[in-house]
Amino acid sequence: MNWNNELTRILKIKYPLVQAPMLGVTTPEMVAAISNEGGLGSLPVGLLSPEATLELIQKTKTLTDKPFAVNLFAHEVPEIDIHAAEILRSKVSEIGDKYSIKYEPVDIEKIRYYSWREQIEILIREKVPVVSFTFGLIDKDSIQQLHKNGIIIIGTATSVREAIHLESIGIDIITAQGIEAGGHRGTFLEDEPIPQVGTFSLIPQVADKVKRPILTAGGIMDGRTFKAALILGAQGVQVGTAFVGSDESLAIDAYKKALIASQDTDTVLTCAFSGKLARGIRNTFHNEVQGLDFTYPPYPILNTFTAPIRIASQKNKNKEFTTLWAGQSASMARLKPSAEIFRALIAETEQLG
Amino acid sequence: MNWNNELTRILKIKYPLVQAPMLGVTTPEMVAAISNEGGLGSLPVGLLSPEATLELIQKTKTLTDKPFAVNLFAHEVPEIDIHAAEILRSKVSEIGDKYSIKYEPVDIEKIRYYSWREQIEILIREKVPVVSFTFGLIDKDSIQQLHKNGIIIIGTATSVREAIHLESIGIDIITAQGIEAGGHRGTFLEDEPIPQVGTFSLIPQVADKVKRPILTAGGIMDGRTFKAALILGAQGVQVGTAFVGSDESLAIDAYKKALIASQDTDTVLTCAFSGKLARGIRNTFHNEVQGLDFTYPPYPILNTFTAPIRIASQKNKNKEFTTLWAGQSASMARLKPSAEIFRALIAETEQLG
Repeated sequence: MNWNNELTRILKIKYPLVQAPMLGVTTPEMVAAISNEGGLGSLPVGLLSPEATLELIQKTKTLTDKPFAVNLFAHEVPEIDIHAAEILRSKVSEIGDKYSIKYEPVDIEKIRYYSWREQIEILIREKVPVVSFTFGLIDKDSIQQLHKNGIIIIGTATSVREAIHLESIGIDIITAQGIEAGGHRGTFLEDEPIPQVGTFSLIPQVADKVKRPILTAGGIMDGRTFKAALILGAQGVQVGTAFVGSDESLAIDAYKKALIASQDTDTVLTCAFSGKLARGIRNTFHNEVQGLDFTYPPYPILNTFTAPIRIASQKNKNKEFTTLWAGQSASMARLKPSAEIFRALIAETEQLG
Repeated sequence: MNWNNELTRILKIKYPLVQAPMLGVTTPEMVAAISNEGGLGSLPVGLLSPEATLELIQKTKTLTDKPFAVNLFAHEVPEIDIHAAEILRSKVSEIGDKYSIKYEPVDIEKIRYYSWREQIEILIREKVPVVSFTFGLIDKDSIQQLHKNGIIIIGTATSVREAIHLESIGIDIITAQGIEAGGHRGTFLEDEPIPQVGTFSLIPQVADKVKRPILTAGGIMDGRTFKAALILGAQGVQVGTAFVGSDESLAIDAYKKALIASQDTDTVLTCAFSGKLARGIRNTFHNEVQGLDFTYPPYPILNTFTAPIRIASQKNKNKEFTTLWAGQSASMARLKPSAEIFRALIAETEQLG
């Protein structure tokens, strides 16, 4: 099997497999393991301070000298309405009280949100080879500046219209995210209802409408799904859920076990954790937030207020009050080192010819 | 490419391509065209009287001597509550009045529903080679009786759990219907929420859990998608939307043109036409019914009350007040004879090796 294509050439990688950036799951060790194997690891730095961003990039560089991507959240930073925030905090605390979860509530006065605009200079200064973004669009100037510095840019589309838009603003590689995918939806155009296109329909239609190389995201868990993604018209794949169960993942054991115990119908698209639509395995916290009476504030405000409970849940090794982001094929996950999972995906795909 | 597999052997066909039964779209001519080309045409007879069922089967037999399937709707016949029916009729008539649509309202006294139980004897007497069913399950006795008469049975699953269930009751072939698929959902187990698993996740997980041959339904429109479906673990495909635009289809021109003009995000899952969830291109009638204040009655009661407006819309060559069932890849449809579409699908798949 010949892995050499436009995508691998642009990214200077051996195999067209990108590990999805998963904030709260991905570690520099996971990124480096994938890049060292010849794929492209992706380091998520969304929501982080410039200092934390720099530290993670430098940490990753100590672990690999191969190309990796740094992933930004390109949303606008919201204004905090103190009164509304207090109501929200008390709503979320109802769940904490009901289940006697001990946690440190958010100090509203101390909330500080960082913008991707504060991070992008660091990325350029650190000469990261690839920048990917989601949750919105980076601006024209930033795209020009990244390109001027030889940095490749990857964007996410959840519909043909979004893919065409990304191409039109000069994005180099487009990740087409099918509805099967775990984690947050990458939708950025305000379509109503939000696009819910399956991988099987999204990829060929995007491939027919854009010239830039496409990555398939959503359902890639083994050789069959990798190969099928290529046949549908993608030049590569972005793989998330398959690495949640890896040794290098920050996921707690109960989360990893929930993946392999799950059924195809066990995930749900929900705003309950962050205020932004994402796919994960249903749990108690999700069900409770669904039952609360409030309007979702702009991202990432709800995320801020659910964080203390989620962190407490993880400390208690309890999967019921934290995020269990996972795609519809979570049952196919493997609990192994990232490099082993990566090599299995490549070998199985090669076997299919 | 070797097309010989368990599925083609069981069905005694050359190519593992089943044309989906599409009530209101499929004609005996379409069924015969597909079977004559070496695939399996499917004649839908759901909701029809025993007399109409017999007539359509006999008509099809005059057009082909190759195997074809007859498709039953296996729902239970509902009781009609006359008072509730009158309210429903008047609700639907609000839409007819608003848009000055001339139609003959339903005479509630004359409504007569037929059960699949009244049709199955005809199928046996006519020695149809294959029976498929959806909208529920046929009973154990019927399965035994069909098998005793050498008839192959195909059922539809929308989740791994449903596929396992079909296998456990002795169904020969399982159509795994991804969320991309056009027309009615084949869901029969009462999961809450209703399964919405994408083709890309559904097929490999079903393939890993059942031994019976699987057909992929949802997004098969060309060689890429046919080949990808096989790689994911299916032995064949069921193709619906790709034949809606065919010359042998009952779809009006405006419906056919709407397919190829559509975008990936233009379809919606809706109960607005029949009371049962189905995917089609959004139009005025869908939007209007969504705005009505009523509870959906059991299938097929709403279907009965929307029928006169739908028929009037079709007579007026107007696509806005009739069903435009279509999958998420509708834009890939071709407006050609069924046999040509079929041959293109086979040739394109063979080219992929």
